[in-house]
Amino acid sequence: MKAILLSIGNELLSGKTVNTNATYISSKLYELGIETLRVVTIGDDAREIQQQLQLALQQADVVITTGGLGPTHDDITKKAMVEFFGSRLVFKEEILRKIEERFRRRGSKMPAINRNQAMVPADAELIDNPVGTAPGLLFRRDEKMIFVLPGVPREMKSMMENAVLPLLKDQGNLEPIHVFQYRTTGIAESRIFEMCHDLFAAYPQLEVAFLPRFIGVDIRILVKAQALMQVDFPKFEQELYQRIGKYIYTTGTEELEAVVGKLLNEKGWTIAVAESCTGGVVQDRLTNVSGSSEYFLGGMVTYSNQSKVQLLGVRPESLATHGAVSDMVAREMARGIRETMGTDIGISTTGIAGPTGATPEKPVGLIYIGLATPDTIVARRFVFVQDRRLNKELGAQAALELVRRYLLGIPIDNDQPGKN
Amino acid sequence: MKAILLSIGNELLSGKTVNTNATYISSKLYELGIETLRVVTIGDDAREIQQQLQLALQQADVVITTGGLGPTHDDITKKAMVEFFGSRLVFKEEILRKIEERFRRRGSKMPAINRNQAMVPADAELIDNPVGTAPGLLFRRDEKMIFVLPGVPREMKSMMENAVLPLLKDQGNLEPIHVFQYRTTGIAESRIFEMCHDLFAAYPQLEVAFLPRFIGVDIRILVKAQALMQVDFPKFEQELYQRIGKYIYTTGTEELEAVVGKLLNEKGWTIAVAESCTGGVVQDRLTNVSGSSEYFLGGMVTYSNQSKVQLLGVRPESLATHGAVSDMVAREMARGIRETMGTDIGISTTGIAGPTGATPEKPVGLIYIGLATPDTIVARRFVFVQDRRLNKELGAQAALELVRRYLLGIPIDNDQPGKN
Repeated sequence: MKAILLSIGNELLSGKTVNTNATYISSKLYELGIETLRVVTIGDDAREIQQQLQLALQQADVVITTGGLGPTHDDITKKAMVEFFGSRLVFKEEILRKIEERFRRRGSKMPAINRNQAMVPADAELIDNPVGTAPGLLFRRDEKMIFVLPGVPREMKSMMENAVLPLLKDQGNLEPIHVFQYRTTGIAESRIFEMCHDLFAAYPQLEVAFLPRFIGVDIRILVKAQALMQVDFPKFEQELYQRIGKYIYTTGTEELEAVVGKLLNEKGWTIAVAESCTGGVVQDRLTNVSGSSEYFLGGMVTYSNQSKVQLLGVRPESLATHGAVSDMVAREMARGIRETMGTDIGISTTGIAGPTGATPEKPVGLIYIGLATPDTIVARRFVFVQDRRLNKELGAQAALELVRRYLLGIPIDNDQPGKN
Repeated sequence: MKAILLSIGNELLSGKTVNTNATYISSKLYELGIETLRVVTIGDDAREIQQQLQLALQQADVVITTGGLGPTHDDITKKAMVEFFGSRLVFKEEILRKIEERFRRRGSKMPAINRNQAMVPADAELIDNPVGTAPGLLFRRDEKMIFVLPGVPREMKSMMENAVLPLLKDQGNLEPIHVFQYRTTGIAESRIFEMCHDLFAAYPQLEVAFLPRFIGVDIRILVKAQALMQVDFPKFEQELYQRIGKYIYTTGTEELEAVVGKLLNEKGWTIAVAESCTGGVVQDRLTNVSGSSEYFLGGMVTYSNQSKVQLLGVRPESLATHGAVSDMVAREMARGIRETMGTDIGISTTGIAGPTGATPEKPVGLIYIGLATPDTIVARRFVFVQDRRLNKELGAQAALELVRRYLLGIPIDNDQPGKN
């Protein structure tokens, strides 16, 4: 079963509104096993709506339109549909009642203009709108279903959940798709491909997609329920882990900081952070996890040399000899924050986020991550080439990954996070 | 001049990725006076790409595609274009060099697969990619321009700004649209409307758009060059400031932290931060500004009571009597960090980010911001009702806004940031 979405509205074409409706609808269809072939975003223009509908019906079994059902003059979707299907508008008393009632409950009188919304195509099935005024429409033509929904996300979602998805599910001939996800960090998209392409090729039933993010690459494996039964999936997964397992931090949807938090909780350990170039991002991420106060006691952003010395006990000689951005200072910062806060783990960052501050030996993007634990103090060197914001994000990711690897006993090298 | 955008990528059709690229591009075209007729989102499918390109070239003067230029097998946009235009791929040594250099600078070797990206259509003009590996392409056919850009937003934006928009601007027959922006925080969209709708109505030549963000509302005023000459714009602006001026932190595009940084620099003042519930976001934002080490000396994330006492000198009695989330503790934290770091300004946050940790008197979203300056120590109370992440963001915004207002002598009240 294939779907095409038509997103209707001038505001979507002038850059004022992001088309989140299409994302929502296609993700819901996807979970049902319905493939979205295309999303077409067009203005409030009857001819364009009709042309795109015509094209869509040549390829799709389901067409879902959103937008253009409001009461004002620029909302012309209903009219365009009626013309297209050779239908006519009829007045429905019960819809008018509902709309009037809605205004009454909010303590206001229905503006005359909303009366339009009680005019509906004679041969369309109506879809109730529990959170707004305009009803949705369903046209059926030659086994195809055309849903006409409002553009207000709340109204659209309520109709999708209460009417559209249950109806589509009942079609019966759907084959659900299983989704497996492996979130990686420290390995480039192209490197994953290099290391795994023969494995992927050996399992043609599995559809492999890479979703690169700045701080890592998510690998998604999609497989139809039927095909999954013909595949030795555990063997595939085992092979995948043999090749790139150390880079995979979760098979779920959580972020790296949640994985680190879980590992700390399991050990009953605590952590503290001393950041220079990352400016608070490591601590921000750690505290995004609800319950992080169990293991994150606190930390510092020591941006000046003086604060590194005064608050963390970094030795002035280290700063003078090696500079603030150095292996030595990273280690002293990590040790200092671990001792000051009395935690099991101390982690530190020091680097040149850019765009200024570079020297011939120390380029923008150079960053050292320090790690102090009950049994070791180490530092790792990274060079990122991104802009200031990304250097902060990548540095924070590398710091969290260092902690994850240490806690799992995975060799701590300096694999760069990032997508290529 | 009319444009059609083709957004290419399976991830856009399975609901995994929101198509923000199209929004960005259409808004930029809009400002140049170029109308976007349609945005078509399609999968990584050569035939579909070619069909949609064919349709697009029937109506549009400019076609901009995004996505599918990566090095892996599922990135097929380049191949589809070459076939469509009857071109052929040629190897460009200088592109390979750039890509290799990019990897080298990060201390890694270029994977063999990235070599693909140095194969480019013989008759396409190349668009430099300063922040990634794949170059963009420009095909010219019958007075029409077809831009082929990567899907990674940073890379796409950099090419739009450096190459695409300047080229389009040079086309000459455009009536530019002037854009005025007023970034506000601490006032809801509906309240701005309430306070200004008669003003907006008095200037029908000005198209007013509200762009709500979680941490504030940007007001954008669009006006055609011709119409602008017929309007007393300074008078309009003066009136706007009389009504909502104290909420406007910039007429540029910079974030609040840059505005605060500029004000601190002008005074030659320094700042330090003590965060609890915001977990590092205030410091992260301050350090997003290049050169922030001039005025931001550092700070702490004191998540535990113990660290508040030990590092900031918060009195145990204050914690016992008022609790960590209180006016008193916010003020003691601000004073403590100011004294410890020896800065002119100390700012603090303490609150309940949620979803856990609430009590009957102290709901999720309650947050106190403390401010210590040479002449005063104050705290302000806010209640946000968002989720954990948003509470952190809103708390940080409120903290920065408190500093801005103090530095400008604007009354420091507790106007909530946020969009409604």
